[in-house]
Amino acid sequence: MDTRTGLPVVGMIGGGQLARMTHQAAIALGQSLRVLAANPDDGAALVAADTSIGTHTDLDALLAFAKDCDVVTFDHEHVPGDHIRALVAAGAVVRPGADALLHAQDKRVMRQRLGELGVPVPRWAPVRSTEELAAFGAQVGWPVVVKAERGGYDGRGVWVIGSPGEAPAGVELIAEEKVPLVRELAAVVARSPFGQVAVYPVVETVQRNGICVEVIAPAPGLTDERAVEAQNLAIRVATELDVVGLLAMELFDTGSALLVNELAMRPHNSAHWTIEGARTSQFEQHLRAVLDYPMGDTSLTAPVVVMANVLGGEPGGMSIDERLHHMFAAVPEVKVHLYGKQVRPGRKIGHVTALGDDLEAVRASAARAARWLEEGS
Amino acid sequence: MDTRTGLPVVGMIGGGQLARMTHQAAIALGQSLRVLAANPDDGAALVAADTSIGTHTDLDALLAFAKDCDVVTFDHEHVPGDHIRALVAAGAVVRPGADALLHAQDKRVMRQRLGELGVPVPRWAPVRSTEELAAFGAQVGWPVVVKAERGGYDGRGVWVIGSPGEAPAGVELIAEEKVPLVRELAAVVARSPFGQVAVYPVVETVQRNGICVEVIAPAPGLTDERAVEAQNLAIRVATELDVVGLLAMELFDTGSALLVNELAMRPHNSAHWTIEGARTSQFEQHLRAVLDYPMGDTSLTAPVVVMANVLGGEPGGMSIDERLHHMFAAVPEVKVHLYGKQVRPGRKIGHVTALGDDLEAVRASAARAARWLEEGS
Repeated sequence: MDTRTGLPVVGMIGGGQLARMTHQAAIALGQSLRVLAANPDDGAALVAADTSIGTHTDLDALLAFAKDCDVVTFDHEHVPGDHIRALVAAGAVVRPGADALLHAQDKRVMRQRLGELGVPVPRWAPVRSTEELAAFGAQVGWPVVVKAERGGYDGRGVWVIGSPGEAPAGVELIAEEKVPLVRELAAVVARSPFGQVAVYPVVETVQRNGICVEVIAPAPGLTDERAVEAQNLAIRVATELDVVGLLAMELFDTGSALLVNELAMRPHNSAHWTIEGARTSQFEQHLRAVLDYPMGDTSLTAPVVVMANVLGGEPGGMSIDERLHHMFAAVPEVKVHLYGKQVRPGRKIGHVTALGDDLEAVRASAARAARWLEEGS
Repeated sequence: MDTRTGLPVVGMIGGGQLARMTHQAAIALGQSLRVLAANPDDGAALVAADTSIGTHTDLDALLAFAKDCDVVTFDHEHVPGDHIRALVAAGAVVRPGADALLHAQDKRVMRQRLGELGVPVPRWAPVRSTEELAAFGAQVGWPVVVKAERGGYDGRGVWVIGSPGEAPAGVELIAEEKVPLVRELAAVVARSPFGQVAVYPVVETVQRNGICVEVIAPAPGLTDERAVEAQNLAIRVATELDVVGLLAMELFDTGSALLVNELAMRPHNSAHWTIEGARTSQFEQHLRAVLDYPMGDTSLTAPVVVMANVLGGEPGGMSIDERLHHMFAAVPEVKVHLYGKQVRPGRKIGHVTALGDDLEAVRASAARAARWLEEGS
């Protein structure tokens, strides 16, 4: 409890753009997000009054950080489970808990558990040797997708290989069939300790080089039946794993079936569109969920909402400030979110959101705005 | 320029809720608002990473604060004009400038100037003695409204008196006729140094005890002709006075005419509804204006938007956190903004915004939510 305001203190471990945007949502709720950032230049550290500097692997830093928080939650899933258990042993309330979060940290555990629950997933196997990988490839056909069991994100830790010899060395891997997918979807749900769930409309996510570049809400042409199937999968997994806070479920749409790809238990890129595009943003919803407030309305504010990520372009040319000027003039209908990051090629430095009635027009607006910010043209 | 981000630094003098909400908007633009707060517990000081403590009457504090700002602007209009001129002489860019801001600081100057511009205002006179006040009252009829020339806000510094003897002593006053008004309106416009203007839909403001309690956008039943008249008045005054940033113009609607009541040159309570209810919030718009970015779209996101202020209730009973829980459960369609203030009777501690199609339903939602937060019922 913040004695100055009479309102709770939520601590977030990690100071990236997710914490930055959660802080914006916290302000409206009368709070100020407490941030543990690795670096004083992290996106959230630049804007949040109550920032401490420390790494998520430093238990002493975590314990000191958690001390005055009513709830501790996460900007990323890299905090070791034993550290989370130590926080809880010291009296902290941590949401989601270590047992739930493990399924967003370890792909092998996640695949195993989803299989036990009967949730549809790609064919997969843990592979501990070239022989096991060769055997799996012979069974499902090459190429095969191999993934690091832990630590991957944004296309890192994932490789598509044509033969066993191409597998990266020194990493514990799982192998998966390369699913012949039509597109990727995401279903995002928030769940409170009380067990209330609120689910967002299912979206289509568009990837380039393994990085999400565009999200379309709602997913175009998705049947109601299929959308409900995806939402029910997300609700069921959130409930079975006892997730508290947000669960983002990435799905493959093969045309004839849905298969679960990844899970994240925090605000997620596939729901950035909710800031303007839903009555309750994912950031506010995550705070409401971990605080056991009643969940907010997840309905769309427009028939079509498109988010485009802004990736850092090549250095040189126009400054980001000049690009922003031009973007505002050229695409006035778009809303911008910049993360306060130094521009580096391929790095997510912000996103833009467009809303409207016409899918192609809205997509074009978002793409044009992202291009202005990426390339200055 | 913030060298960490390549984006500009806007400094705001004053650390109240207007700075707090401007900081939220700054975050989306990749910035972090620089705040000069009188008190470390001020609403913006609780949430903004880059806060200095100092008063707006302390020139040394102002000079130190302005040093690394690309632009300095205001959360309130109380900074002395000579201090602003000293900032400019020291190389600071201050928007709006001292000559414009004077018209939001001094009601006598404002009335004089609006009269010269032919802008319709209530009949008024500066009154320096009981005799002058008696003469004015004899001319326009009692009761008469008297206002402190400087320093008033939120109903403070305004008195309705039935005879000259009731006038407060020791204050420089102007007297105005008590206009037989049907309702109050507000027109809010943003203007950039380049001279671009963006005007919001005209709203109706509802006052209780001199404090705004409700704002309805757009103003119900206002003819297009009258709305355009109000908007044109605001644009004209912004341009003539060389306002940069937001200008909020409060108007009396007498049924047959519009009369200008007050001017404010900063984000204003009559446009808090724009956070969810307009494509560009007034807070983002103010930043864009003072930075000379192209202005954002001011159109409504729903046919009807209603904002209700949340005033502190009597002490005791439910905590604000409990009230918030109940409010979320009882009125899920409403968005809340709490300012991080200690609850004191009559103090503005937050606001709520409701959107929809049906005026009476939307008003009822907003009122119900405000009542939950004010009274816990």
